[in-house]
Amino acid sequence: MRIDKIGEFGLIEKIGQWVKADASVVKGIGDDCAVIKYSKDKYLLFTCDAIIQDVDFRKSDDPYLVGRKAIGINISDIAAKGGEPKYALVSLGLPKNTSLAYVKKLYAGMNYWVRKFKINIVGGDISRAAKVSIDISLIGFVEKKNLVLRSTARENDIILVSGPLGGSIRAKHLKFTPRLKEARYLVKNFKLHAMIDISDGLIQDLGHILAESKKGAVLYDGLIPIALDARNLNEALNMGEDFELLFTLPFSEASRLCAKMKHYKAIGYIAPIKTGLALKDKNGKVRKVKAKGFRHF
Amino acid sequence: MRIDKIGEFGLIEKIGQWVKADASVVKGIGDDCAVIKYSKDKYLLFTCDAIIQDVDFRKSDDPYLVGRKAIGINISDIAAKGGEPKYALVSLGLPKNTSLAYVKKLYAGMNYWVRKFKINIVGGDISRAAKVSIDISLIGFVEKKNLVLRSTARENDIILVSGPLGGSIRAKHLKFTPRLKEARYLVKNFKLHAMIDISDGLIQDLGHILAESKKGAVLYDGLIPIALDARNLNEALNMGEDFELLFTLPFSEASRLCAKMKHYKAIGYIAPIKTGLALKDKNGKVRKVKAKGFRHF
Repeated sequence: MRIDKIGEFGLIEKIGQWVKADASVVKGIGDDCAVIKYSKDKYLLFTCDAIIQDVDFRKSDDPYLVGRKAIGINISDIAAKGGEPKYALVSLGLPKNTSLAYVKKLYAGMNYWVRKFKINIVGGDISRAAKVSIDISLIGFVEKKNLVLRSTARENDIILVSGPLGGSIRAKHLKFTPRLKEARYLVKNFKLHAMIDISDGLIQDLGHILAESKKGAVLYDGLIPIALDARNLNEALNMGEDFELLFTLPFSEASRLCAKMKHYKAIGYIAPIKTGLALKDKNGKVRKVKAKGFRHF
Repeated sequence: MRIDKIGEFGLIEKIGQWVKADASVVKGIGDDCAVIKYSKDKYLLFTCDAIIQDVDFRKSDDPYLVGRKAIGINISDIAAKGGEPKYALVSLGLPKNTSLAYVKKLYAGMNYWVRKFKINIVGGDISRAAKVSIDISLIGFVEKKNLVLRSTARENDIILVSGPLGGSIRAKHLKFTPRLKEARYLVKNFKLHAMIDISDGLIQDLGHILAESKKGAVLYDGLIPIALDARNLNEALNMGEDFELLFTLPFSEASRLCAKMKHYKAIGYIAPIKTGLALKDKNGKVRKVKAKGFRHF
């Protein structure tokens, strides 16, 4: 059996069966970050994410923006759990003819977020490789009461997104802002039930919340905020690399939030698992949808 | 300027100038692990190391042993600071035609050390790639009093190694045992001043201790323990992938250790910086040596 037959998420599920964790691990494989017991009030968050030339960026892309993206996607994962990033390791794969100026710009791009969010780059690793790759692992912290997982959505929760979706790969995927400030504001002021960042597409990432929470969902076509760069609804549903927050919370909390902050958009609600993932058009016609977002395999 | 002109360690030095760390970082770039304030009695250790097909292993190598090596080299880095490994993230780069059985064996190999040393694999990342790569980041902990850095060797310290050196790349580089038990025994029972694991060759890794400690050293040709798999002294000095411990401690402590445990070998002593790295042969003839160990660039 080849891994491209069982697929990226099938493989992750298998790996979950091969590893074991002790009682200090609150959440292991299957969320944006690992969640580990830390102190009386806080958990430690631990995540890693790599970007690779010709998959996530091109060699001709500005290395400043490539570095910015490499750390941005990891910050986004910490934000999606309600936490704050703190310590990073940077593992670089570099062709031997890479210029020093290229590597310096990668770090300048990383430093853009490092300074803004008071992160420390504390080490890393360099390997010779055929293509440029940047694999960052990030430690963060979250107050226990502010932790938000994928697995804790509840029936009748309202589903919200933090901004318009789609078209990012053509436009802003190298320039996105990880929604750290927004996520911290949300967890401090609202009772969120579940959260994820949209990296692989709304439908696919909502699918992770539903699978982990054992729930279904109903989304409304007309409510999905479509980015200016997106060509159509389909791109808003499936293109990925938006790095907006996707989260669920009770109706009363959602009303309070939407009344205050207009850029948070309610797009549907959490339903029983038997609903699956249903999309309703303006005529009330329902179609079941399956994820068509980005997968490595 | 190309990075292969300034070299791997020149590049690491540059990177050290591009990043800044706050007061919670006890040791950032320039040691086997980052050392971070954690609790009243303990530091958090944070390290990552990647192995890549056709650089560190071949596709034809048993994936069980490849997985074992991938986590072993990271455990070795935690051990070299006197600490214990605890939480790992595994970032895999995989060609899409990789078999599920191959990935399962990688994890079985990692689990060999995971079970032995009570480590938790808590997550990771999967990317499609042209070649297999395994990049592991590892969190560990060390009692403050047991931390051993590269930068704290003192003049007249005796230099010891934990076992014979050389030839590993031909023989045991996939099957080595990270010296975690030995390192924990050492830091609990002896006053070590500086330590590193030998990954790139005795001369090169001793060079790191000397550079960070601003010291020199005298080694005795006849005292270097040469592994059965090594062809000559030169391989013991420069081949690398031994993953033995290289450490320094006061003469009285070294005597006490060597009297007790015969496999620890004294190979020389720490000298003033002006000595450089000097090798004495059995006739007392001295030659200065430079690192010729493994470098990515």
